[in-house]
Amino acid sequence: MINTPNRGKLSNDIGSFEILYKDLLGRIGKLKTKSGYIETPCLLPVVNITKQPISMDELYNDLNCKAIMTNAYLLKKRFESSIIEKGIHEFLGFEGVVFTDSGAYQILTYGEIDVEPLEIVFFEEDIGSDIAVILDFPTGVGESRKKAEFTIKETLKRSDEALKKIRRKDILWVGPVQGGTNIDLVKLCSQKMSEKNFSIYALGSPTKVMESYKFETLFNMIFTAKSSLPINRPFHLFGAGHPFMFSLAAAAGCDMFDSAAYVIYARDGRYLTEYGTSKIEDMKYFPCSCPICVKNIPKDLLELSYEKKIELLSKHNLYICFEEIKRIKEAILEGRLWELIEIRTRSHPSLLQAMKCFKKYKNFLEENTPSSKNHGIFFFGRDSTYRPEVVRYRKKIIEDYKPPKNFKRMLLLPTSSNKPFIRNRLIKYLIRNFESFKDLQICIYSIPFGIIPLEISDMFPLSQTEICTECNEEVKEDLVRIITDYLIKNDYEKVMIYADNKFWDKNKLKKVSKICDRKKIDLNVSYYGDKVWNRESFEKITNMLEIPFNGVSS
Amino acid sequence: MINTPNRGKLSNDIGSFEILYKDLLGRIGKLKTKSGYIETPCLLPVVNITKQPISMDELYNDLNCKAIMTNAYLLKKRFESSIIEKGIHEFLGFEGVVFTDSGAYQILTYGEIDVEPLEIVFFEEDIGSDIAVILDFPTGVGESRKKAEFTIKETLKRSDEALKKIRRKDILWVGPVQGGTNIDLVKLCSQKMSEKNFSIYALGSPTKVMESYKFETLFNMIFTAKSSLPINRPFHLFGAGHPFMFSLAAAAGCDMFDSAAYVIYARDGRYLTEYGTSKIEDMKYFPCSCPICVKNIPKDLLELSYEKKIELLSKHNLYICFEEIKRIKEAILEGRLWELIEIRTRSHPSLLQAMKCFKKYKNFLEENTPSSKNHGIFFFGRDSTYRPEVVRYRKKIIEDYKPPKNFKRMLLLPTSSNKPFIRNRLIKYLIRNFESFKDLQICIYSIPFGIIPLEISDMFPLSQTEICTECNEEVKEDLVRIITDYLIKNDYEKVMIYADNKFWDKNKLKKVSKICDRKKIDLNVSYYGDKVWNRESFEKITNMLEIPFNGVSS
Repeated sequence: MINTPNRGKLSNDIGSFEILYKDLLGRIGKLKTKSGYIETPCLLPVVNITKQPISMDELYNDLNCKAIMTNAYLLKKRFESSIIEKGIHEFLGFEGVVFTDSGAYQILTYGEIDVEPLEIVFFEEDIGSDIAVILDFPTGVGESRKKAEFTIKETLKRSDEALKKIRRKDILWVGPVQGGTNIDLVKLCSQKMSEKNFSIYALGSPTKVMESYKFETLFNMIFTAKSSLPINRPFHLFGAGHPFMFSLAAAAGCDMFDSAAYVIYARDGRYLTEYGTSKIEDMKYFPCSCPICVKNIPKDLLELSYEKKIELLSKHNLYICFEEIKRIKEAILEGRLWELIEIRTRSHPSLLQAMKCFKKYKNFLEENTPSSKNHGIFFFGRDSTYRPEVVRYRKKIIEDYKPPKNFKRMLLLPTSSNKPFIRNRLIKYLIRNFESFKDLQICIYSIPFGIIPLEISDMFPLSQTEICTECNEEVKEDLVRIITDYLIKNDYEKVMIYADNKFWDKNKLKKVSKICDRKKIDLNVSYYGDKVWNRESFEKITNMLEIPFNGVSS
Repeated sequence: MINTPNRGKLSNDIGSFEILYKDLLGRIGKLKTKSGYIETPCLLPVVNITKQPISMDELYNDLNCKAIMTNAYLLKKRFESSIIEKGIHEFLGFEGVVFTDSGAYQILTYGEIDVEPLEIVFFEEDIGSDIAVILDFPTGVGESRKKAEFTIKETLKRSDEALKKIRRKDILWVGPVQGGTNIDLVKLCSQKMSEKNFSIYALGSPTKVMESYKFETLFNMIFTAKSSLPINRPFHLFGAGHPFMFSLAAAAGCDMFDSAAYVIYARDGRYLTEYGTSKIEDMKYFPCSCPICVKNIPKDLLELSYEKKIELLSKHNLYICFEEIKRIKEAILEGRLWELIEIRTRSHPSLLQAMKCFKKYKNFLEENTPSSKNHGIFFFGRDSTYRPEVVRYRKKIIEDYKPPKNFKRMLLLPTSSNKPFIRNRLIKYLIRNFESFKDLQICIYSIPFGIIPLEISDMFPLSQTEICTECNEEVKEDLVRIITDYLIKNDYEKVMIYADNKFWDKNKLKKVSKICDRKKIDLNVSYYGDKVWNRESFEKITNMLEIPFNGVSS
């Protein structure tokens, strides 16, 4: 008996995925299912109907949760006939979107399960899942390469079989990518899967990697899969546990997550925050304003029955997870997702370590980030040099920018706290005196952009960046490298640097000087002391420029 | 007519401040007032009774706010007789703790006010404030040094006059420190104020510094004041605006804050988060689970009347502020305040810049931090090297630690992912073979501690630190510096390093080798390749040790 869905008529745009906003690889999207839209990034709480501390009604109404995940394999084992009769939505009493997992996790745990791959697929059709996973063969972690290769082959075979046999086109079918921690195999599997017609792709086997906090490995797997799969399809991350990594996962292109952490942690008396975990018996304060936490202190919860404690703790944990999802969406909308991951990577050293992957995939991230934002960006230090806006500018200034032909001399000035730079008094004064110097270009040297020609200095994000100037040496070396690259690329006859003596030490100057020697550029450096702009500075600069100093006071 | 307080009988321990927990300079304390206890760190919302969007009842009951601040000067101007008749608590309809400011902020804004300093003090006594500020003379920002010196003199004079004339000992009197951004004057003023018998000290004039995001300057002022004032008294920060800096302020020793930001921002349509601010008209999602945000989306608020919008936005803003205070308290309790400020300093580059002050006062912070914690600490990079646990260990290993006299040879091994290190297989094996080598000490080299003698390696925090190994060069240089300092201090005949060839480049080895030459220490280095522990490594180490390799497999 086949359950005919009554929520949402069958229409041929089921499975459509409209991307509304994007930032990094994160996006706010609308995914159409037969039970309504899912807005991504979306967290689907895992529901185990036999031991569910939060009712479906509370989930849907109080927690505003419109999509859940449940396990088709486990349901089939226990409730096969009644669930087929009622359909999954009526059986669960949940009118939102139901995503069914296939039992692959049970294969991972027990090695094998007693159901044929197509049996599960047909069962998922029979119960009327909105989104359903084929029964793939998960690679797991720590398996031999041969085993990993086998799981991929098996998953691809099962994908073909399933896609050939499925009858219901109103279900969004999910194709999991396998390969485990073997990055080359993840790539291979992604390429093969991308040729198959799945509505949603997913990363298989990440649970153990996450549980052991190997986030660098996890993000390598994610970025590898993402860069081979069709970018316009949603990408699901199975078992994304802790909310402290949701924003990084979203930034790496995970549109959907499922998580049972809210209840697993609750059973263990663990209280989730968006940056960590605490045992409630160790706590005196709840750092949260959710409906549970404004009414209770930890002591109150500890005095409750075990069941009630789990219920309240699960609810808080889920509020925190959904809150983080809203935070991620708002960050994507406002173009501040990089800012959010700068914060979240300070929740745990292993998350900061995972930023290595973001560095490796900086060009991929850059290509998918809007080129303008209506607010400034933040620069905190070396890690921030990999954010798309910085990567993009540094590339453009070297590869694309050509100074106007008449510029033969360059005056390189330090940055100013006035922004745009053009507002700076000295610059205004120099420009006033420029009319006779058509051969002179003013450039600004500044962290993190390197070199900024004055005529483009009011473009985003050059004038809108807030900078922590307490930078490490690597960031300063970067700056010098961009300047030398720029000088190699372009032809000037003379370069004059008005130089900060703390920044421009012997080594850095030597690097610039070497290029100038090679390119026969006349280099002239004038140092300033404690104060960058004073009467003396005007004199020094006009001296370098060989124009008379006409006594403008500082 | 004098209002006799009926809440809390007059007892001689009013003003007592009991410190329950501490971390960095932050502390959870109980401050006794005649209207009950304040638990610090405490945020007192500023209440302006003439335009207050949240009722006193809602503040006290819904927001669980038990202490507020209001302005005695403004109240005196408008409601003098009725407020004296009723007393401040009845007048406001607030039974919690009432802290009255004196009108100093109005002096700062208007240059002068039309009330004598003692008039305000007597008024505060008459209305029965629980905590009251004398009318000091604020320095402000951008004033001449002469003016700053004058304001200090005047503040000290007014302090003496007030303390001489006050009649009510059941009021906690607050002594503000002036000096503005002149750090030496802040120090001078703090020293003078510390001789006077105030119940609470405070930092005056910080508002403009905060408004212009000059947090480095602000924290210089705070640390300077804190290090000269009596550490066992509460310290108040006037006008601490945005919740993103509360944790840093608490870590720098501010026990109390007042803030009107919740309503000032709300009037401007601005939505506070613990890491920033958004305009509600730009928002689509509220990243929060407070009673306002679980029931509304930004669109809902925009459709309300102006008054109602301000009310709801003020409430959200205040929930967020109190949530951050609870987060800070929980962090102090759990000994994770440094972890919290690592996160918060990534909310804005100017907050990260303020970490410079935390570096400058690292010893002061270290002295006030408990020496043991029941959990590991996080190490993210250079900034983390200033956290008390690291500062303390680095100091102790050089200044206090003495290796047992019999140790003539040192074997320096890389760190291991097993913790405690003693669990490492190789180390276990070497120890088994040690019985004949009473002259040999095993040490571990590791970021961020430098050098760790094996016999103390299970002490806190050596084995409980989570490390982001993606460190910058400065952190690595630190490590080498500690090793060389250690070698200078102690006498070994032979040092053997089992060295990572990526870490131990020519420069770093040269530094160690130079010390060994000078101290006539025999230096022996054996490099390992990609894998630190394998069969070959056992051989290399036993070779250096000149003991037979007995074939233990890796």
